[in-house]
Amino acid sequence: MAPRIYLAGPDVFLPDALAVGRRKVELCREFGFEGLYPMDQDEAVGADPVEIFRANRRLMQGADIGLFNLTPFRGPSADAGTVFELGFMYALGKPVYGYSGVRAAYRERVEAAEGGLQGKDGRQWDSAGHAVEDFGLSDNLMIERAIRESGGVVVRAEETAGDPLPAWTAFRDCLQRASADRRAGSGDAN
Amino acid sequence: MAPRIYLAGPDVFLPDALAVGRRKVELCREFGFEGLYPMDQDEAVGADPVEIFRANRRLMQGADIGLFNLTPFRGPSADAGTVFELGFMYALGKPVYGYSGVRAAYRERVEAAEGGLQGKDGRQWDSAGHAVEDFGLSDNLMIERAIRESGGVVVRAEETAGDPLPAWTAFRDCLQRASADRRAGSGDAN
Repeated sequence: MAPRIYLAGPDVFLPDALAVGRRKVELCREFGFEGLYPMDQDEAVGADPVEIFRANRRLMQGADIGLFNLTPFRGPSADAGTVFELGFMYALGKPVYGYSGVRAAYRERVEAAEGGLQGKDGRQWDSAGHAVEDFGLSDNLMIERAIRESGGVVVRAEETAGDPLPAWTAFRDCLQRASADRRAGSGDAN
Repeated sequence: MAPRIYLAGPDVFLPDALAVGRRKVELCREFGFEGLYPMDQDEAVGADPVEIFRANRRLMQGADIGLFNLTPFRGPSADAGTVFELGFMYALGKPVYGYSGVRAAYRERVEAAEGGLQGKDGRQWDSAGHAVEDFGLSDNLMIERAIRESGGVVVRAEETAGDPLPAWTAFRDCLQRASADRRAGSGDAN
């Protein structure tokens, strides 16, 4: 049986969310994985948040690996629902990977959005007076460190055309990496 | 021994982060809890993201309950690191609670930040062309539903003076609720 990959991300908020999901599941198949896209079950679960939550939780529990779309969503950080799911799957001991359609590091993105930062006491501060993490990572350190500790990586590749949210280039690179890791590792489900 | 509460939140990015943490730990004690504030250990772990991650993970693993500051941070959603930790502690089966210094629901906050939303196909869309969740919840449904399923609640109370980030009123209300749940035996998951 092909290893199952849970496809987390704000892709579900795109106007063509279903088509994007179908294409990502197709790409998973090309790399030897079965892709699990949360929206695949929406018809069954309807629009009840209780049922959507439980359906997504079931999908994650049944997955072997998680691929997380960390492209910034409504601010400099990844989508909150996606990051919640990352913490959940990491705690279950599953390998988790991240990918993003934006190359710039977190501090650079906040700096660009703010039009500059304030340096003081050896740290950088935003206009609201809050410190900005500056480890050269793609997002809050908990996110990237969890991915690394699980055996995964964060792949960033700038999307130059259209909405960067699906992050096609980084998604493909990330799948390739997960596939190589799977072949090199000992936990192959085959 | 007093039940240990992990105090997650973007409070660590405040200029007076240490003082805020000390006061929150004090309030925990008043309600019969031992508060665990991530920054308490910063001196020991230094500024290495690997060590910070592992220290926070240890703190969460050793905690009995999690209290999560979900006040919007650099956008309409909660801080990404906080939400990661919520997923992690929820997966470990611990009761998790949320609190926020902003009363408005997620859709209302996005609408205010955007200066309006676009209605189409029975959903609301932001200016980037992404659908806006509209369940009347404080944030992405995964966050609030996990909290409810764990037996916890999300407390929202508007902070009217100064930076709403520490969310003092909601924090105290949330501690009170966690304390009452504890005395009642256990949280009733719903």
